Amino acid sequence: MTYVSIKFSKNRLFYIDQTKLPLEEKWLECKNLNDGYSAIKNLNVRGAPLIGIFAAYVIIIHLKSLPLEKSLFLKEFKRAIAYLKGCRPTAVNLAWALQRLETLCWENQSRSVSRIKEMLAREARLMHREDISLCDNMAAFGAKLISDNDRVLTHCNTGFLATAGKGTALAVIYQAKKDKKNVTVYVDETRPLLQGARLTAWELMKNKITAFVICDNSAAYLMRKGLIDKVFVGADRIAANGDVANKIGTYSAALAANFHKIPFYVVAPFTTFDLSLASGGDIPIEQRPQDEVRLIMGSLPVVPKKAKACNFAFDLTPHDLITAIVSDKGIIYPPYKENIKKIMVKIM
Amino acid sequence: MTYVSIKFSKNRLFYIDQTKLPLEEKWLECKNLNDGYSAIKNLNVRGAPLIGIFAAYVIIIHLKSLPLEKSLFLKEFKRAIAYLKGCRPTAVNLAWALQRLETLCWENQSRSVSRIKEMLAREARLMHREDISLCDNMAAFGAKLISDNDRVLTHCNTGFLATAGKGTALAVIYQAKKDKKNVTVYVDETRPLLQGARLTAWELMKNKITAFVICDNSAAYLMRKGLIDKVFVGADRIAANGDVANKIGTYSAALAANFHKIPFYVVAPFTTFDLSLASGGDIPIEQRPQDEVRLIMGSLPVVPKKAKACNFAFDLTPHDLITAIVSDKGIIYPPYKENIKKIMVKIM
Repeated sequence: MTYVSIKFSKNRLFYIDQTKLPLEEKWLECKNLNDGYSAIKNLNVRGAPLIGIFAAYVIIIHLKSLPLEKSLFLKEFKRAIAYLKGCRPTAVNLAWALQRLETLCWENQSRSVSRIKEMLAREARLMHREDISLCDNMAAFGAKLISDNDRVLTHCNTGFLATAGKGTALAVIYQAKKDKKNVTVYVDETRPLLQGARLTAWELMKNKITAFVICDNSAAYLMRKGLIDKVFVGADRIAANGDVANKIGTYSAALAANFHKIPFYVVAPFTTFDLSLASGGDIPIEQRPQDEVRLIMGSLPVVPKKAKACNFAFDLTPHDLITAIVSDKGIIYPPYKENIKKIMVKIM
Repeated sequence: MTYVSIKFSKNRLFYIDQTKLPLEEKWLECKNLNDGYSAIKNLNVRGAPLIGIFAAYVIIIHLKSLPLEKSLFLKEFKRAIAYLKGCRPTAVNLAWALQRLETLCWENQSRSVSRIKEMLAREARLMHREDISLCDNMAAFGAKLISDNDRVLTHCNTGFLATAGKGTALAVIYQAKKDKKNVTVYVDETRPLLQGARLTAWELMKNKITAFVICDNSAAYLMRKGLIDKVFVGADRIAANGDVANKIGTYSAALAANFHKIPFYVVAPFTTFDLSLASGGDIPIEQRPQDEVRLIMGSLPVVPKKAKACNFAFDLTPHDLITAIVSDKGIIYPPYKENIKKIMVKIM
């Protein structure tokens, strides 16, 4: 069975509200640009690859409200793209997908508005199909790294809720299972927003994979006890030298894996690479509201009134802590600077 | 102002219910042995030094219900001691305090039951006063390690809620403040039971110390960003070689501190040392109910129904990751095996 987290059909866009999972499986319709912006901003739709595809569809939904006069259309289109691009800063897939629509539009601005709209809608659907096959490719490459009876640590959510396909890091595990390998997954709960506990545990149960939710702070101790064989995580942006921005806590897990000599794999499609940045230090790291730490699930206060919190939503893992990066074009090993360049040239 | 977490007066024992903090400041009375057992087991009273003193008082409360005939008294007394000792396995202070009462009783078994009861009650009060002064001593030694404007990371709760005095690691910070040093504290929230977010943040606010609650998984990244100067934590048991059992997440913080060359200090009184154990591998590590991970604050589910969790309540930090151990008798530096023995001989 194939699960999905967004649906686009007859020019209508639907998404599963990820903030309500796993307690409630609720589908909502995104009716306009502001709906889409809020859905991404408030993490109803999240996951680096998914927000790229979703944002592209949000633009398609928005097209029908744009003026028919071409110069006005182009101006409003550009404004919508810029607005959505600014919604979340760290994952590059959002900017990448929107840039692709923008470039297509600019290259075809001599055509009629209705023709441009058609082309944009076709491009969004193409990106969607591409994302599905990127996931399949990463899964196939990554599954080779998994042995029978492996116990894998993962962080945040990187499955069908994080992409338009079957996932990045979790897709590797799904593929290993399909290949008849027995895999046990330790799932970092991933505070503050608990994407591991809420979303990854839910996905793994749907896919009948043995999983244990753990508090993020216990991963290092489980490694010391010899309970973890490999770590697989996703990425929000990868710089030219292989430095990785990903959900807060990834760096901590990478340090622990490094200390215990446990392989640490990052799984991400080419859309997550940003070769314009020499290193991870240039990646903008989103800071989100203190209340995400102060109130669990937006409702349960766990600190005294007026207590302050600090909430970096992502962190940076330097490339020398990463054993390999599993991309849709193959497994990339160090030295990353050269090997990423080689594989990216093949793609682009 | 001096805050306390237990009160013993006119043979009645009261404690602040730590499971309700910080939302509610509720004092309860411990009326009998079973009350006391539950209060420790369910973490209404927690903190390695505190549960030692509290358990001693629970025994004193229990004395009045014991038979007056001596052989029956001794049998029932011994049974009560054994029962309470088994309540929580990791912190050695519990066993230490109860053993001290048991030894006193055995040494004086030729005396009348009423005389033995008097002696036990006096001993419990003495241990209470001693714990207060142990805290003062640790605070004085530890504060020398803090410089003006230090930004300190701490884990779990190690203040007046964790001891009968002003604390272990937090007492060091309180003393530094008293010495007019400006200190900013980053408080690991300490999943699953959030003792950092709930208790440490509450203590620091009461003591007007600048504090930021952080998710445990972000400490390593804050270190990388240069925001942490030192780490101070408590301990539940310290083996003869300096290996430390402490709240889950301590090991993860120690690994990160080690990688970033940030001093990592453990603060604990001699009652936390267990020289009968050669190394940390011999310390029993308590596993607690899965629901502590699955349900936040015992009520809010954060995983799918039927999802499994893994809940080690403590972890082990090997001595080579520890910069120094601040004891009530002075600061202990490596090599720990020799230096712990030297300082303990002085005490015992």
